[in-house]
Amino acid sequence: MAKAGAFSRSTAGVYAIAPTPFLEDGAVDYVSLDRLIEFYNESGVDGLTVLGQLGEAPKLSAEEAVRIATRFVERTTFPIIVGASAPGFAAMQALTAAVMDAGAAGVMIAPPVSLRTDDQIVGYYAGASAAIGAETPFVIQDYPLTFSVVMTPQVIRRIALENDNALMLKHEDWPGLEKITTLRGYEADGSMPRLSILCGNGGLFLDFETERGADGAMTGYCFPEMLVDTVALAAAGNRDAAHDLFDAHLPLIRYEQQPGIGLAVRKYVFARRGVLASAAQRSPSGRMTETTKAEVDYLLERLSHHDPRAKMSREH
Amino acid sequence: MAKAGAFSRSTAGVYAIAPTPFLEDGAVDYVSLDRLIEFYNESGVDGLTVLGQLGEAPKLSAEEAVRIATRFVERTTFPIIVGASAPGFAAMQALTAAVMDAGAAGVMIAPPVSLRTDDQIVGYYAGASAAIGAETPFVIQDYPLTFSVVMTPQVIRRIALENDNALMLKHEDWPGLEKITTLRGYEADGSMPRLSILCGNGGLFLDFETERGADGAMTGYCFPEMLVDTVALAAAGNRDAAHDLFDAHLPLIRYEQQPGIGLAVRKYVFARRGVLASAAQRSPSGRMTETTKAEVDYLLERLSHHDPRAKMSREH
Amino acid sequence: MAKAGAFSRSTAGVYAIAPTPFLEDGAVDYVSLDRLIEFYNESGVDGLTVLGQLGEAPKLSAEEAVRIATRFVERTTFPIIVGASAPGFAAMQALTAAVMDAGAAGVMIAPPVSLRTDDQIVGYYAGASAAIGAETPFVIQDYPLTFSVVMTPQVIRRIALENDNALMLKHEDWPGLEKITTLRGYEADGSMPRLSILCGNGGLFLDFETERGADGAMTGYCFPEMLVDTVALAAAGNRDAAHDLFDAHLPLIRYEQQPGIGLAVRKYVFARRGVLASAAQRSPSGRMTETTKAEVDYLLERLSHHDPRAKMSREH
Amino acid sequence: MAKAGAFSRSTAGVYAIAPTPFLEDGAVDYVSLDRLIEFYNESGVDGLTVLGQLGEAPKLSAEEAVRIATRFVERTTFPIIVGASAPGFAAMQALTAAVMDAGAAGVMIAPPVSLRTDDQIVGYYAGASAAIGAETPFVIQDYPLTFSVVMTPQVIRRIALENDNALMLKHEDWPGLEKITTLRGYEADGSMPRLSILCGNGGLFLDFETERGADGAMTGYCFPEMLVDTVALAAAGNRDAAHDLFDAHLPLIRYEQQPGIGLAVRKYVFARRGVLASAAQRSPSGRMTETTKAEVDYLLERLSHHDPRAKMSREH
Repeated sequence: MAKAGAFSRSTAGVYAIAPTPFLEDGAVDYVSLDRLIEFYNESGVDGLTVLGQLGEAPKLSAEEAVRIATRFVERTTFPIIVGASAPGFAAMQALTAAVMDAGAAGVMIAPPVSLRTDDQIVGYYAGASAAIGAETPFVIQDYPLTFSVVMTPQVIRRIALENDNALMLKHEDWPGLEKITTLRGYEADGSMPRLSILCGNGGLFLDFETERGADGAMTGYCFPEMLVDTVALAAAGNRDAAHDLFDAHLPLIRYEQQPGIGLAVRKYVFARRGVLASAAQRSPSGRMTETTKAEVDYLLERLSHHDPRAKMSREH
Repeated sequence: MAKAGAFSRSTAGVYAIAPTPFLEDGAVDYVSLDRLIEFYNESGVDGLTVLGQLGEAPKLSAEEAVRIATRFVERTTFPIIVGASAPGFAAMQALTAAVMDAGAAGVMIAPPVSLRTDDQIVGYYAGASAAIGAETPFVIQDYPLTFSVVMTPQVIRRIALENDNALMLKHEDWPGLEKITTLRGYEADGSMPRLSILCGNGGLFLDFETERGADGAMTGYCFPEMLVDTVALAAAGNRDAAHDLFDAHLPLIRYEQQPGIGLAVRKYVFARRGVLASAAQRSPSGRMTETTKAEVDYLLERLSHHDPRAKMSREH
Repeated sequence: MAKAGAFSRSTAGVYAIAPTPFLEDGAVDYVSLDRLIEFYNESGVDGLTVLGQLGEAPKLSAEEAVRIATRFVERTTFPIIVGASAPGFAAMQALTAAVMDAGAAGVMIAPPVSLRTDDQIVGYYAGASAAIGAETPFVIQDYPLTFSVVMTPQVIRRIALENDNALMLKHEDWPGLEKITTLRGYEADGSMPRLSILCGNGGLFLDFETERGADGAMTGYCFPEMLVDTVALAAAGNRDAAHDLFDAHLPLIRYEQQPGIGLAVRKYVFARRGVLASAAQRSPSGRMTETTKAEVDYLLERLSHHDPRAKMSREH
Repeated sequence: MAKAGAFSRSTAGVYAIAPTPFLEDGAVDYVSLDRLIEFYNESGVDGLTVLGQLGEAPKLSAEEAVRIATRFVERTTFPIIVGASAPGFAAMQALTAAVMDAGAAGVMIAPPVSLRTDDQIVGYYAGASAAIGAETPFVIQDYPLTFSVVMTPQVIRRIALENDNALMLKHEDWPGLEKITTLRGYEADGSMPRLSILCGNGGLFLDFETERGADGAMTGYCFPEMLVDTVALAAAGNRDAAHDLFDAHLPLIRYEQQPGIGLAVRKYVFARRGVLASAAQRSPSGRMTETTKAEVDYLLERLSHHDPRAKMSREH
């Protein structure tokens, strides 16, 4: 029972990575979750990816994960991709079956940190593809900074050739601009089927990634509207305007991309924007000091001179 | 509802690491499981650790994990320790609650591979201890070869001092003999509460580990009876006899300890011994070629000259 | 025979990380080297660090390393710090003796990637300090992104307490703002001697690092003049102006900080600025495509609207 | 000026890995070095590999390295292979030129720990081969346990196909038996030129490695005579006798193979055998306690019942 509007090899635009709201005591905050979904519905994004690393998926029980993913599916009209990375195929299979049954558009799979060789990576995706079933579309997550697994363009090509349900690449290699160029070259010379390429990495290189041939962004930056506008400006050939908008946000993008506390910053801004009731994360979590908060406030204040959406309407 | 015979800080002897039997199609083989439990009941071991790495725990769904652990608890009279390592505390908590409710004696927790500094490791165990609850005894698993997390003796001391429910150390650092000596020294000088130290690492150094002060073994070698006898001989001060028995098994111990295919070898021997119906592992798994099987057969044949238990009674 | 103007625990300002110029055939380009030194002499920097990772030090023979370091010492009046990280203490000792004899102000030492525990790191610096001699000042390089060695503030404090010749910290942990605050707190409460803290990491967080208590920058960004001005504006309490200048450069800073091709970008800009004859690196090196060059040119063109020093005076 | 008796693609037998003798104060012990060389000349080995990891090569200055390698060349009649792994190609080139000029038979090159993908590894060896020169034979060192670089058989085939001077593989993958079988299969089907395969890893699997097609051993076990005899017995088809001898040594082989203190054990036994004046290592080094020494003495005493060469003729 897939929802209308599944993603495909030609999907373009912005898929926001959604955080999972928690109350201060660590319980899932379903009230904020509904408000967050409403926020995304109005933000202009083309889809959502939920239960990723930055959705604190590994901290959820299996039941919570399915319940949250289902909530996203039920209250949106665009495709929902669910992070299904797991230590073993049994857990991956169980979660995938549950969320696909609930109407998810597909799943995202990151490689386990233990993989090293090209063959190990290709073999892993073959096993994962079999585990989730050939009818389930999936996204390859290529994030060496976090997972320590380096996929060359050739490896991605092999995965795409071997698995018809590999439709999209979440690209967050670093550096990664040439990788986009190489992959688009493979498609042009006919040696690889097209993949939708949406870029993560906090958006830090989005300005050039779209110019290299990426279809858009898949990241959780606290102003998804900016991602939408930047991708649209670039798609319209409005290069300088795309960079102008992007550059205005770059100091905050850069600040939010710090490992460990980046998610805290993101949730803090969502709280200041009135979307989340609290910036709380489930334990273990990066702490945010008063100095950090003041730095983010300063960045927001500076940003508001360029982008009125950064003007905070209420005290915190 | 804990079963009589919980483990404690002074537990000595052998806790076998139990494999999980699978059918060739990947389903759990509950018939072999019951036969395996019967085998352990007659083997002389003092307890079992189930759902560890070599129990293929990450390949099980949450439901399977609880069902298998419960089966072990119900059909044995000695303590059952359950591997509860998980990517997040929510899953760890859920599994722990279920198996403790079913009568398990405690859980074993390995550190996630991302930990680096002393404080990170100590902090992680504080969080894990809180997640499983102060009333749940746990085993610290110290296995740097697999987890890349190096715990100094001081770090283990800090964990033991901070968490009253840390009762046992599964010691499998490599090299690790001096570590046992250092930890026993901490206990002697009163700076650390006693931990039961059971040694893993496939048993490769068991002959000297007991002499250094370890209380016994916690490993899954395919002849747990040998572990029982070696620990008993060492405890009785029968040094040469302990080494003689151990040395006779060492060629096979060494062969079984190979990462990747070690579990395949172990299951193959259990199958040859008539305990498991099949050596099958759930995917992904190390493959065992005919040459490998012939090498194991040769090692068993050589071993049988020293230890009649290695005489295989039936063709395979 | 140390040159006047050694660095100290209170050194503030900018120490640029100098690249090593090569000809297209891989030979050291001493003509460009002299021009580079002249450039630094006029740039306003307070010192230089040479033969670091981004100085391609591991690609130099021992003789080349000493000759290049000596050239820097002879043609400048400010302190020269020499990267002396080496696989073993014998090579570290030999290089240190040679460059200190030539008039270097001290050496910089990064930890080998194999270190894991707090004690291993502290022990390594004790050995390194003994190898270079107590009279040789050294800089602790804390760069976990590259070296995979994570030093907590407590570890840095232990190193500072145990080694009187540890005078400076090259701070490039990521995230690292709280680390600066914590270290300055240790100094304030008297539990740690003061260290000069100069920040690396390509300058990506320099705007806030100075506000947290860092003394300045030690990095190789292709416009060291901007580093000098930003640190000076921050020191003068001119917060908004410091951020304005920094933000104008941030798109290029971000682009230059990409691992693998960052140095290629840096050398390319130095070549466009007329300082280096060529952007060549000694093999193995990151390649820079025409598209990459065009992207850097675009970034320079945009930057020149805010900072006239980015206006390129001649075609390339 | 190469010495007669260079190694080749068909070299078989034992190349011992030679330790570097030091005095207690850390200076090279040239008296023991000469005695060690004499010992090897009488041991039956077919060649030596010097300045490897276990020769403490990274702790030597460039001058010491060349002097020691030259001494080995001058005082032996069999081929000397020199470890030339270095952080950069310049140092590799300099050392290689010096030792080849002195009469070495070739060099051994391990991959830097930073390599991950198949292409990176193949590319690295292409660069290394160019650096040392096409006329210099080299040995590929495949040791993932220490270097974290995993080479598939296909990668080794690519290196062998691309570099005519790649003549030998030091095989120490773990597990690695199937790898030998696969590589010999490539040779049999004509897809790869033959490599001499000598096995390291402390000799822990030598009994089966020869049966899989390895040409012999390249390791530093403290009884190289046993390696010589085992390889000869296996080559003569005397399977049981080869295993009997090997198994008698296995408790000590296993003990010596512990990372960190293995070299200390090896030097201790060489000292007890009267070859080295001292077991001293250059700092930093693994420490050997009195308990460890007593354990080695016990192992030697037990071994002497099976192999009279383990009978220690003098007190220590």
